[in-house]
Amino acid sequence: MQLQHNHSLILDGKRLISQINELGETGADTINGGRTRAALTDDEKRGRDLLVKWMKELDLDIQVDKIGNIFGTLPATSSAPGDASRPLMIGSHIDTVVNAGAFDGCYGVLAGLAVVRAFRQAGIQPTRPITVAAFTNEEGIRYQPDMMGSLVYAGGAPLAAILDTIGTDGTRLGDELERIGYAGEMEPGAIIPHEYIELHIEQGPILEAEGIQIGAVENLQGISWQEITITGTANHAGTTPTRLRHDAGYAAASVITFLRDIASNGTTLATIGSMRFEPNVINVIPRLARFTVDLRDPDEARLQAAEQKLKDFLAALAEKEGVQISSEQLVRFQPVMFDQGIVAQIIQSAESAGLSYRRMTSGAGHDAQMIARIAPAAMIFVPSKDGISHNPAEFTSEEELIRGANLLLDVVKHRLPDHQN
Amino acid sequence: MQLQHNHSLILDGKRLISQINELGETGADTINGGRTRAALTDDEKRGRDLLVKWMKELDLDIQVDKIGNIFGTLPATSSAPGDASRPLMIGSHIDTVVNAGAFDGCYGVLAGLAVVRAFRQAGIQPTRPITVAAFTNEEGIRYQPDMMGSLVYAGGAPLAAILDTIGTDGTRLGDELERIGYAGEMEPGAIIPHEYIELHIEQGPILEAEGIQIGAVENLQGISWQEITITGTANHAGTTPTRLRHDAGYAAASVITFLRDIASNGTTLATIGSMRFEPNVINVIPRLARFTVDLRDPDEARLQAAEQKLKDFLAALAEKEGVQISSEQLVRFQPVMFDQGIVAQIIQSAESAGLSYRRMTSGAGHDAQMIARIAPAAMIFVPSKDGISHNPAEFTSEEELIRGANLLLDVVKHRLPDHQN
Repeated sequence: MQLQHNHSLILDGKRLISQINELGETGADTINGGRTRAALTDDEKRGRDLLVKWMKELDLDIQVDKIGNIFGTLPATSSAPGDASRPLMIGSHIDTVVNAGAFDGCYGVLAGLAVVRAFRQAGIQPTRPITVAAFTNEEGIRYQPDMMGSLVYAGGAPLAAILDTIGTDGTRLGDELERIGYAGEMEPGAIIPHEYIELHIEQGPILEAEGIQIGAVENLQGISWQEITITGTANHAGTTPTRLRHDAGYAAASVITFLRDIASNGTTLATIGSMRFEPNVINVIPRLARFTVDLRDPDEARLQAAEQKLKDFLAALAEKEGVQISSEQLVRFQPVMFDQGIVAQIIQSAESAGLSYRRMTSGAGHDAQMIARIAPAAMIFVPSKDGISHNPAEFTSEEELIRGANLLLDVVKHRLPDHQN
Repeated sequence: MQLQHNHSLILDGKRLISQINELGETGADTINGGRTRAALTDDEKRGRDLLVKWMKELDLDIQVDKIGNIFGTLPATSSAPGDASRPLMIGSHIDTVVNAGAFDGCYGVLAGLAVVRAFRQAGIQPTRPITVAAFTNEEGIRYQPDMMGSLVYAGGAPLAAILDTIGTDGTRLGDELERIGYAGEMEPGAIIPHEYIELHIEQGPILEAEGIQIGAVENLQGISWQEITITGTANHAGTTPTRLRHDAGYAAASVITFLRDIASNGTTLATIGSMRFEPNVINVIPRLARFTVDLRDPDEARLQAAEQKLKDFLAALAEKEGVQISSEQLVRFQPVMFDQGIVAQIIQSAESAGLSYRRMTSGAGHDAQMIARIAPAAMIFVPSKDGISHNPAEFTSEEELIRGANLLLDVVKHRLPDHQN
């Protein structure tokens, strides 16, 4: 790419912010100022329609694959050599958790559009195609596993089985995909990216706490999701001596406090986000407690150690309390190493822009970890206020959002083949 | 009462068992073989209709009060003196918890009918009226507080306010009472019993464990019900370091394990029967945990001590975890002492029948504790297999049920004024 071209690539920060805000109003909750766009709901369809409209405004080649992933491609110069036919992909997701913030996922997709817009407005064609991707069901709150669209795209799960996934509301994923009109024709994985870059808010407190502007994400921690069911004996709360109880609720509580101890090593994270008691009556000892366990660690050996400690604890607990305990693995992803070449460019671009930066680990799961299976990938983080995410209070300033998008543009420019050489 | 009459009073055990079984089939659950007759539901109305039909078969004077308590009275001999106009009352309840056993409450009411039936079949009129009572909403699962009908009857709560109680399903108690046709004319408390006797399954393991046939219940433990709400911060499960979490679910779990320690003194009982997380999503740290606490102790000072320890723990927990904690008292009943005269007769009747017995404390709340406010009262317990209650597995053998009813009949005979003296 020629220098004068580089100089004429200008990122429209105002437009990026206005699109983040407009998408953020889609599926707005009446309370708390949040929004909910669970995958393949009517509200998420409205978000998809908005994205597709914006892709059309940029005259991108739009494709939707059979799992509903949306791709908008800016074609390359006709002079692009064979290898350059594979696109540089910029992606993330636009589905949300319940009562979510406005930036998680959406920022990365709309920053991709902003990068493409810079080329369009400069009248420049890139030396390889640039594809902006929005992957289906990254959050996994309605259909599990999460990061589903990118997982299928990377060949990590069979399409047919995933389409048969039954959601928390009893719906079949494939039927909902048809219903909202996003069951596309393209085979997942048909476009193998040359490389993949995902820009995202940190969703954690580290950058803000250390006063650092940019995170060059070089790896991503492993994730283990389980659903645990404890079955005890329902009995009268007033007449059953403590020593004779088989209290599923107490057993569940002791698992939660044990997991807090496991997480005290400083690298492992343990979260019990979902809990249900049966019969759930004030004066009846719980017969059943069903809950989820989310374990994460950047190191596979430590993650496996945490899983084993939990397993051993559950076995001892079942014996001690006289309850039955069963566990089902819902999700299991090993830690991911990102591409050092892209990470090096992120650092170089940050330095040349005079931004403070640090190499870091992603605590959250991201589509980048799936695409990393089929292409070199890396991520760029910008700070999240108080580390809050999955919450309406999720906040990153406009200045930080625009700064991150400009960095993404610079990284993209430098990762495109230079025809001058 | 004349001796030859005593000899001719025969309790029909077969009929008692058949009525327990028939009432037990009302509101039968399709699963687990239990039954659910939450107060003032259509299923509980069917139970009431059945009871009223059986009272009519015994030609009792039937009255229903404004809170829906049902009374069936066998008149006394016309020669009964003034004081003898006040009835000996035998009562309990016919509402149930969710997926309940067949004996809790129903046994006491139907044993009362069996006692009256013995008089009818012998053609004997008692020397004071005998009233069989079924009190409204003893279980308190749909409308709180529990033991509501007897509480109002004893003047412990204002009728108007109780009729405005909103149920867990959003219904107004007074409206449901009208709907099922059991909003009666009689003022609660209009019939002051001369004394009150309640026969009940133990709902606990003590009698069976000690191989004892009859419990002479001389007191009843105090009950404290609270609903506790913990509010933390919803946040991303993968990116929030443990030390920076404000996890409402973890805080709730640590309350449960703390209460197990409180209950280790051997007299205090602590139960967390109901629990709810928000947003209740696998990868989001719970923003809110709301749960109930059921504390019981036969000693008021120890019950207050347990409440205070919980209060102190919650204050320290809020500080330590950076969460807000609020607590609402739902129910608070002090321990109750029953009438030693009636207890002495229960023991004497057990001895003369050659039955093993023990004085004991009731762990459960019963209507007897409310009626004890306006009349001498006591209870008789029969064994519960494995102490299981509030569960379809609740079981007492027919032999034990009939034995208890015969003991009740003998106690009633001896508590009636003897015109011979």
